[in-house]
Amino acid sequence: MEHRAMNVLLVYAHPESRSLNGSLKDFAIQRLERAGHTVRVSDLYAMNWKATLDADDNTARQPGARFDPSMDSRQAFENGTQSTDIAREQDKLRWADGVILQFPLWWFSMPAILKGWIERVYAYGFAYGVGEHSDTHWGDRYGEGMLAGKRAMLVVTAGGWASHYEPRGINGPIDDILFPIQHGILFYPGFDVLPSHVIYRTSRIDEAGFSKACDALGQRLDDLWTADPVPFRRQNAGDYLIPELTLKPGLAPGRSGFDIHVERD
Amino acid sequence: MEHRAMNVLLVYAHPESRSLNGSLKDFAIQRLERAGHTVRVSDLYAMNWKATLDADDNTARQPGARFDPSMDSRQAFENGTQSTDIAREQDKLRWADGVILQFPLWWFSMPAILKGWIERVYAYGFAYGVGEHSDTHWGDRYGEGMLAGKRAMLVVTAGGWASHYEPRGINGPIDDILFPIQHGILFYPGFDVLPSHVIYRTSRIDEAGFSKACDALGQRLDDLWTADPVPFRRQNAGDYLIPELTLKPGLAPGRSGFDIHVERD
Repeated sequence: MEHRAMNVLLVYAHPESRSLNGSLKDFAIQRLERAGHTVRVSDLYAMNWKATLDADDNTARQPGARFDPSMDSRQAFENGTQSTDIAREQDKLRWADGVILQFPLWWFSMPAILKGWIERVYAYGFAYGVGEHSDTHWGDRYGEGMLAGKRAMLVVTAGGWASHYEPRGINGPIDDILFPIQHGILFYPGFDVLPSHVIYRTSRIDEAGFSKACDALGQRLDDLWTADPVPFRRQNAGDYLIPELTLKPGLAPGRSGFDIHVERD
Repeated sequence: MEHRAMNVLLVYAHPESRSLNGSLKDFAIQRLERAGHTVRVSDLYAMNWKATLDADDNTARQPGARFDPSMDSRQAFENGTQSTDIAREQDKLRWADGVILQFPLWWFSMPAILKGWIERVYAYGFAYGVGEHSDTHWGDRYGEGMLAGKRAMLVVTAGGWASHYEPRGINGPIDDILFPIQHGILFYPGFDVLPSHVIYRTSRIDEAGFSKACDALGQRLDDLWTADPVPFRRQNAGDYLIPELTLKPGLAPGRSGFDIHVERD
């Protein structure tokens, strides 16, 4: 197996370093560094990351002008007038070969502070609004984009039981709960997205459980560069009608839902 | 049709009042008030709402103590030491007969500022961690809870085309994208949840389009008290195995996914 030194950005969103999440984060850094990789961490709580996207994110805007989140983001990105905290995170993403988002599942999604990282760092021209629109190509997205060629993986802790997140579990299947992140946030700007790594029932983890959790996470980190990404369908590779962007009738015929956007052999 | 005066809480999350969202918010307030209802608005951006859940949300915590988001929330809620902004929003929820969450769909979910409102206002003992656990009852949740008897509805704007959110659209079906909110955030603490109201392709709305959007929204607001809620299955009403919380094999046999948690006649 090829062994290259890679750059890994770990974006971490938990308010307490003396937590299971904090311990897993430290473990992950160590595991990756011991494998020869370079790790940078965006510890959003420690950085006091500004969660709320607003007009101040463009340092050069006209006072009193109507604020348009997309158009302001575009202008600031193009003109280099983004808030420096945003530009710094974009530089980390450019630098990274692999990106890990680690967070506790709060109300079936990522914590607000991480959602706000996505909203602010994912500028127009950087993570969306990229590429041309034509009869055969609807922007560089869903498999193409500025983050193409990089890998991404979610590391998620959940307080609930694994069975609650099974295909027939009351919370809904975990892959469906995470689909808007895996597909809509990671695949959208081009990442190769690995299956998410989820740790359940985290309030009950003892020392043996922690050791097991580290083993499982460690394996995923060891396999970061070799594991098969989720085979999401590429938007502009012929599977979708353009501009409707519905899956062509001959593919997954008669079916609907998130799963049809994963190509099964 | 019965006509009672109701209390409506509108939680609104858009940074620019001179936006389509701002105009729709103003329209909704007017429509509800003209129907005789009392409306209170939590305009999260205007309130400079603190999006990030952290240790400061409990005003009486031990300095230096390890922060546990759930246990701190529980303690603060029980002891009345929550941050006042949190307690104030909980009071509004207690007061309300109906709650509307209005927001633009950003990266396939609610804006961070609204997610942070949920995380902070949904305290342990208020929106989760309520009720007993036994062989037949697994907490007051998914159909029971402190917010039972109230109605909730999402009003969502999306930049993309409606077809992109259809059952076979590339973004995934809108009902699946919103399921973690509809079911996991609204039904969970007891709300009767109405079908969400989604307005598409909002960047292209002209005056005629706006008038049409108001008509459609107005109809939904007129029907707020009479429309049928989404018939989500109640957790403790016999449909689920306890404590596995998987749907019993005889129900929706052979199927899985979000949709099995909606009871179809």
